[in-house]
Amino acid sequence: MEEKSVVIIGATGSIGTQTIEVLRKIKGFKLLGFTYHSNEVKAREILKLFPEAKVFSTKKEIESFYDFMESTKPDITVLAIPGFEGFKVALKTIPFTKRLALANKESLVCGGKFIKEEIKRHGVELIPIDSEHSAIFQLMEDNVEKIAITASGGALRDIPLNELWEAKPEDVLKHPVWNMGARITVDSATMVNKAFEVLEAMELFSLRREQIEVYIHKSSIVHGMVFLKDGTVKIHAAIPDMRVPIAYSLTYPERLYEYEEYPEFSTLKFEEVEKERYPLFFLVDEIYDSYTLRTVFNAADEVAVDSFLKGKMSYKDLVETVEKAVEKMEKIEVTSPEELVEIDKKARILTEEVIKNAGKN
Amino acid sequence: MEEKSVVIIGATGSIGTQTIEVLRKIKGFKLLGFTYHSNEVKAREILKLFPEAKVFSTKKEIESFYDFMESTKPDITVLAIPGFEGFKVALKTIPFTKRLALANKESLVCGGKFIKEEIKRHGVELIPIDSEHSAIFQLMEDNVEKIAITASGGALRDIPLNELWEAKPEDVLKHPVWNMGARITVDSATMVNKAFEVLEAMELFSLRREQIEVYIHKSSIVHGMVFLKDGTVKIHAAIPDMRVPIAYSLTYPERLYEYEEYPEFSTLKFEEVEKERYPLFFLVDEIYDSYTLRTVFNAADEVAVDSFLKGKMSYKDLVETVEKAVEKMEKIEVTSPEELVEIDKKARILTEEVIKNAGKN
Repeated sequence: MEEKSVVIIGATGSIGTQTIEVLRKIKGFKLLGFTYHSNEVKAREILKLFPEAKVFSTKKEIESFYDFMESTKPDITVLAIPGFEGFKVALKTIPFTKRLALANKESLVCGGKFIKEEIKRHGVELIPIDSEHSAIFQLMEDNVEKIAITASGGALRDIPLNELWEAKPEDVLKHPVWNMGARITVDSATMVNKAFEVLEAMELFSLRREQIEVYIHKSSIVHGMVFLKDGTVKIHAAIPDMRVPIAYSLTYPERLYEYEEYPEFSTLKFEEVEKERYPLFFLVDEIYDSYTLRTVFNAADEVAVDSFLKGKMSYKDLVETVEKAVEKMEKIEVTSPEELVEIDKKARILTEEVIKNAGKN
Repeated sequence: MEEKSVVIIGATGSIGTQTIEVLRKIKGFKLLGFTYHSNEVKAREILKLFPEAKVFSTKKEIESFYDFMESTKPDITVLAIPGFEGFKVALKTIPFTKRLALANKESLVCGGKFIKEEIKRHGVELIPIDSEHSAIFQLMEDNVEKIAITASGGALRDIPLNELWEAKPEDVLKHPVWNMGARITVDSATMVNKAFEVLEAMELFSLRREQIEVYIHKSSIVHGMVFLKDGTVKIHAAIPDMRVPIAYSLTYPERLYEYEEYPEFSTLKFEEVEKERYPLFFLVDEIYDSYTLRTVFNAADEVAVDSFLKGKMSYKDLVETVEKAVEKMEKIEVTSPEELVEIDKKARILTEEVIKNAGKN
């Protein structure tokens, strides 16, 4: 087999670092280049491991990076940067790669239809990296009636409801299962991340909202289920370790990664999502059919989480801010990526206003 | 799509009857003919539903049935008769069909290598009907490390161990999940059926004994699991209803059967198989590498179960009879199906002797 060339966008973050680990373990893949945002120390460490790779700072060298993509046309591009920025970068890189291994959520959450148009236009393979979507991708076949994805329930899953609204950043950042970036750990506590995953699943697998169920599954062993029309349910389980779905996104349709361990199965429990504990999760039902509202949902959450993590607002304010921002935005049709970028900007300003006004009360 | 022709061997039994139900619900399949053993009333009922089908008594018209197979060459043959007889019938019908949908266990348990040789020689598809093997078949892919199949644990799973050996036929026949024939219900209590399924899985999927795990799973929702080398586990679940795997064996690779219900998932439990409760299950480890001993295991069980059901021996005697018969037989190499048929006969005589001698003590 010829070596496959890989580019990592966001190599020094959580997914990026684990992609590097995977690349050191599997054969037949070559790191052509990578980007980093601000962690120069880690970028240099990666260069030591892969001295032939080209490195780009997304702050200073983003245009040279796109030129590099255009001239090298890598087999696989791993998009591992967080936030709405990922949507813009995805649109720029899709034309120059054969496969987009996607870890960025916002690309599909906010701009699903534009990403999918570009993917189709350029004949690119879109492979999800998220453990839940990788699970569904691996189980998918015709005749699907519905799917289910699981949620750990985040750091506040067992806190008494009357203490929930007083939770501090340090409480929220103690994720019971996954070790991830700060924003996604907060999003896991509010289950905003699971709302995002519902939206991503709609895009990736062309499903309607009502075809996607979410179960709280505290041991995080089962990641996804596919319910077929003949009564069969296929379930995907694995030890929660992102290197497994990352490796699959690189080696698909083969499985070249080796992992010695399997989950402990003796009891598997699945529970319903509590409405009172996770109001932001249920917001998905009001926004899923509008790319504008999805973008506001994301932007408001990004701004509010940042504010919460800096100690500027309570957990209760975080939840209410997102709810109010979504409520205030009108549901307009988006016809271009540029419009979406404008909406994202407006949504952030709107959210800041919501926060300011809340302070006045 | 052109209509596919189906023949059912053993149409009036449990699997046969359910195959008839499935054929009435799915489109694109035509019942060409069927056999029955002794239930003429049911055979006539089937003829009313499918008046164009040819019917054969296996007692009186087995040779005409084989002629019918040779002249019609059906697309799919469902082999749904129980016992060692199934092995002989399988060998006779394989040359005349495109797909063998196999419910008979003994074909692979006793004569796996001969069946597989014939299947290969005639380019026939072998599709398992058993819920566990259908599950594994549906999940199978490259890079399998091991598989697991589940067991309900049978009617005696919760009886205190000190009362186990006194169990009466009426206790044993109360299966907690599946409604099946009498012998297989007893085999479910002793877990001889699960020993058979391990052997079948070895044959169907070319696995070594140590690659097959068995878990007690009382709710019988999960039927099989496939453990892949990259740490991924794929799990198959469905309401325990044989019509689902029967339909799959007919419609594969498509799923044309519609089933409205999914299992209730809130808690799934998997337990180890108790050595003390299921000694006959663990006998599989002593016999799996010899077709002679497998055939003795089956024959001894068939004879002993019959004797137990007729009230002629205790549950304890049933277990001990099978153990002794297997112990007494020498492990000779079988080189032809004819030799295997002889071994089956000898094993029955040997078992009768074991029973007689036990009576003398």
